[in-house]
Amino acid sequence: MTEQNLNKEPKITLLGAGPGDPDLLTLKGVKALQAADVVLYDALTNEALLEHAPKAAIKVYVGKRSGEHSYPQDTINKLMVDYALNYGHVVRLKGGDPFVFGRGYEELDYAASYSIPVSVIPGISSSIGVPGLQQIPVTHRGLSESFWVITGTTTSGEVSSDIYQAAHSNATVVVLMGLKKLDRIVDIFKTAGKRNLPAAVIQNGSSEEEKLIISTVENIQKEVVQENIKAPALLIFGEVVSLHPSFKNIIKQYATIA
Amino acid sequence: MTEQNLNKEPKITLLGAGPGDPDLLTLKGVKALQAADVVLYDALTNEALLEHAPKAAIKVYVGKRSGEHSYPQDTINKLMVDYALNYGHVVRLKGGDPFVFGRGYEELDYAASYSIPVSVIPGISSSIGVPGLQQIPVTHRGLSESFWVITGTTTSGEVSSDIYQAAHSNATVVVLMGLKKLDRIVDIFKTAGKRNLPAAVIQNGSSEEEKLIISTVENIQKEVVQENIKAPALLIFGEVVSLHPSFKNIIKQYATIA
Repeated sequence: MTEQNLNKEPKITLLGAGPGDPDLLTLKGVKALQAADVVLYDALTNEALLEHAPKAAIKVYVGKRSGEHSYPQDTINKLMVDYALNYGHVVRLKGGDPFVFGRGYEELDYAASYSIPVSVIPGISSSIGVPGLQQIPVTHRGLSESFWVITGTTTSGEVSSDIYQAAHSNATVVVLMGLKKLDRIVDIFKTAGKRNLPAAVIQNGSSEEEKLIISTVENIQKEVVQENIKAPALLIFGEVVSLHPSFKNIIKQYATIA
Repeated sequence: MTEQNLNKEPKITLLGAGPGDPDLLTLKGVKALQAADVVLYDALTNEALLEHAPKAAIKVYVGKRSGEHSYPQDTINKLMVDYALNYGHVVRLKGGDPFVFGRGYEELDYAASYSIPVSVIPGISSSIGVPGLQQIPVTHRGLSESFWVITGTTTSGEVSSDIYQAAHSNATVVVLMGLKKLDRIVDIFKTAGKRNLPAAVIQNGSSEEEKLIISTVENIQKEVVQENIKAPALLIFGEVVSLHPSFKNIIKQYATIA
């Protein structure tokens, strides 16, 4: 157990770890970890990142994999503030970017209520980076002038009403944490007349367990079942998915079947 | 002039440099630059990043600041391929993320037509990272279940039709390269009944020249003129802007005036 350091000023850094590959951490993130007294890290962050922190730093796993809520948000907030008050610099390491469905602002707000200074270091959001690593651009001239990133998991448990609007838009639509709601989301796109829209699912993007499905709104559910896709996974709906080389094979495949 | 290296296999890395602060480059980006024979870099990338490349590497500025088109896209594509064929590993260093309005896919596609292998390294997109550094979260429970990122500069010169849809949505709306169209964009939000929606403009995010305006749809243009805001700048429309501490002062200020 590391001793409490009473000479240190409490401070908190909300740090985005990126989508999984530890090399997708920023230099600024490395420097923050090197200066950490405590690291609180999520299920979605790669534990290899902890190597950047001093050996003496306290490393605390605070959980939250889908379906396995190790700690409620309140507990994480309190742990973060307690550690900062007692040990100094807490790095709160979060998967992706802290402000993309990461509840990062709630943590910032809680720390501010104790007058603990917070700085934010952005991370590569999986919403952009994971499609990009698969060479699926979220925007492309002539195909998409925008992209719309939506959570698949809302507080109410319902599909976000934003997905209904998005299905009618021209944006590339990226849904995070939406795999469990895929049936409902696909129905929404079908109702919007987008049965043939290219669609992709990427599981564990940027990691060794990465899996990719390239399909259409019509056929994506079947393929997700066949390939046994698990969370964490992101969904992409939009013409830009057709730029992926394997999309051409899919078109051929269905042409043959038909 | 570096000698041509005829032993090297041509390859291209599309590398996202992040929004400006050179410490927002990823470790993977550092490694790519360290292994570069040639670096082609944009106006929006920080030249400090070139320090990661070997001294012997060729560094070529290919421009494109708003209104100063040093090289058309075709020329950049050709330069990139020529350098790869003649010198080996070309790192194409692009501001933000390569696939967020960066025409990255056009470069990838052109390289592929010469059978030159391309890898993509995502960067911190200013659309998420620049608001985040100002502690404006693009998503926040109870305020925003999604964010929609749109270009302000389309091929046609018109405002993207996606902005009309976005003004009617519940998404946080981020517009990149939209400062010149601010009048038109503000009109669209007003027509959608969003006169009092919180709005922000951030110039040169994450750099020393950073400037921030926090206001409302109604008043943002006046403040942009008063503060002499210049491109590059991004626009944010959404309730999440109200989380910024200075928003409370703005409300007070207008209450006093009224």
